Amino acid sequence: MVIGILGAGQLARMLALAGKPLGLSFIFLDPTPHSCAASLGEQLVGDYSDQSLLTTLAERSDIITYEFENVPVDIIDFLTESTPVYPPSKALSIGQDRITEKTFLQDLGIQTAPFQAIDNLSQLEQAMPRIGYPAILKTRRLGYDGKGQVVLKSAEDLALAWQAVKEMPCVVEGFVDFQREVSIIATRNVSGDIVYYPLSENQHEKGILRLATALPNDPLQAQAEKIISTLLHALDYVGTLALELFDINGNLVANEFAPRVHNSGHWTIEGANVSQFENHLRAIMGMPLGSTETLGYTAMQNFIGGLPDMQTLLKLTGVHVNLYDKAPRKGRKIAHATVRCQSLADFNHSVASLTQLAAASDDS
Amino acid sequence: MVIGILGAGQLARMLALAGKPLGLSFIFLDPTPHSCAASLGEQLVGDYSDQSLLTTLAERSDIITYEFENVPVDIIDFLTESTPVYPPSKALSIGQDRITEKTFLQDLGIQTAPFQAIDNLSQLEQAMPRIGYPAILKTRRLGYDGKGQVVLKSAEDLALAWQAVKEMPCVVEGFVDFQREVSIIATRNVSGDIVYYPLSENQHEKGILRLATALPNDPLQAQAEKIISTLLHALDYVGTLALELFDINGNLVANEFAPRVHNSGHWTIEGANVSQFENHLRAIMGMPLGSTETLGYTAMQNFIGGLPDMQTLLKLTGVHVNLYDKAPRKGRKIAHATVRCQSLADFNHSVASLTQLAAASDDS
Repeated sequence: MVIGILGAGQLARMLALAGKPLGLSFIFLDPTPHSCAASLGEQLVGDYSDQSLLTTLAERSDIITYEFENVPVDIIDFLTESTPVYPPSKALSIGQDRITEKTFLQDLGIQTAPFQAIDNLSQLEQAMPRIGYPAILKTRRLGYDGKGQVVLKSAEDLALAWQAVKEMPCVVEGFVDFQREVSIIATRNVSGDIVYYPLSENQHEKGILRLATALPNDPLQAQAEKIISTLLHALDYVGTLALELFDINGNLVANEFAPRVHNSGHWTIEGANVSQFENHLRAIMGMPLGSTETLGYTAMQNFIGGLPDMQTLLKLTGVHVNLYDKAPRKGRKIAHATVRCQSLADFNHSVASLTQLAAASDDS
Repeated sequence: MVIGILGAGQLARMLALAGKPLGLSFIFLDPTPHSCAASLGEQLVGDYSDQSLLTTLAERSDIITYEFENVPVDIIDFLTESTPVYPPSKALSIGQDRITEKTFLQDLGIQTAPFQAIDNLSQLEQAMPRIGYPAILKTRRLGYDGKGQVVLKSAEDLALAWQAVKEMPCVVEGFVDFQREVSIIATRNVSGDIVYYPLSENQHEKGILRLATALPNDPLQAQAEKIISTLLHALDYVGTLALELFDINGNLVANEFAPRVHNSGHWTIEGANVSQFENHLRAIMGMPLGSTETLGYTAMQNFIGGLPDMQTLLKLTGVHVNLYDKAPRKGRKIAHATVRCQSLADFNHSVASLTQLAAASDDS
């Protein structure tokens, strides 16, 4: 069976690595030649809107999926005419616009931070008394890893912030005073079965995820599963989905969802019985889903812009490295490492060392 | 870094899957076009003795390794002139001839079954009173999966057996009355560090491995480690090596070794913290070796000649499938599945189901 993937970055690469043992072949479409997934299949090089390449992709694939949430919905609709595409475009169209996304979540009874749509500076000025400071101004579309976001600390920041987002349609969101940032990842297959991964606690810096720690037995697991289950059903979702949440005194508030495999779930490759990548593939093929149980203490550290020495890295107990075959560049995620240990002492020691090594080689 | 591999079958494929996250690229040499590892790198198609292809392989590789033990030693010596090749050719040259192998083992104080070199029928007839019946006549070279082997039950079998092995130089071995067939796999790196996997208990049928079960905490682990450690040092070995052993009332007797990753260690992909494949690569790169501890109850079932239905297979708790991208053919290993469970009850249930499924689809 051939799986087509829009995008050939590290998520596509990890999907392909998970899919090879399942007997799958892969074809990718990505505008950047020699993308990092390309060595695991065939890459069509060109724009995502190139109808001829899209037609080739559709003809050669049995099922199509994607690794990023900014795929234009009309492309998915075009592909769907001839080939099944999962996750469904509804998840994309809702998730691509922060206002639509937050409104959709609220309509489902899922709590979010206070927000308001902003189309011009005066709207922003009028909104702030209700939203309160500090707040964050985000472009409605095409943001990731903290890009297209400006923090508002007082009324004096508004004019500059509005320029910084290039006067694009925005959302302003009130800060929520959270104790933890967590995410839950779940996979739903064509038959409607759902499996839930344990919560991940996520530490960000400069808007980029750094450390994700698996939390089996977290007291908020049931609450998180209820929220993501509501979302999966409302989207009639097929595939793996990630939902970022704030923990505010034990009450989970939704931040945003990603209709794809997610960086905060990379620890599932070694740390869960079946990874988010394999379960995504099983889901879109209509196969039974695999167990999400954890295999010891596990966490993942991203490497941004630079990489520690491999000798040092591989000396750490229970560490697995995952290089993306991407050239180092400032602010670019080029690799991650997972820790999986049977003893808590080993785990804490390896995570502490890993975090130090990542900080020393960081260029973000 | 580019790893060159002689052979592009399933062992090369699993090496490449383990190596991609380490940032490695792969180039294979194999006479069969579109071999099953080819989609994970580049394949040079041609004979192993083709000097021009060997030169290309050596030029393009930083390190070379191999996936089968019948590589002619002069090929390794030729490659070694320009590029490091691991494991060292000494392991190959000794292991390729059953007489040399058994003599080497005995000289190291490692017990073997009684054996004798056989070059003609009258030698065979003269040897049998000492060796005793039943016995097994094996070609000295190029045997695998029970090929080139004939069982001798009485003096009447000798003439036919000698014809069956095509009058090739042979060894006759006395049967040992063993309770279990086990194997130990260990990896030694360039620096001389060694890691040992837990023993695997192996069930064969028609000379082909069917089920391999990991045995952490087996009482014979220390005995097996001592034997393989002796062997690794004597060979000045670098890489992963497998040693097959008979358990005779708690006394381990060596059968044969394979200077490569081994079918009885496929469960290490999911069942050990770091697999035999990743540790082989770490070893030949001179990297620190990873932990061999098991992650729950684990076993591997081979699929020979045919494959069960994937829906049924993936429904089993804790099952991971590994298809080799090989067309089904009578007697051919085309896939395996690993079971990894946290509960013994789940494990026993999944293994029993898996064994039944494999038997139903078997064509060996």
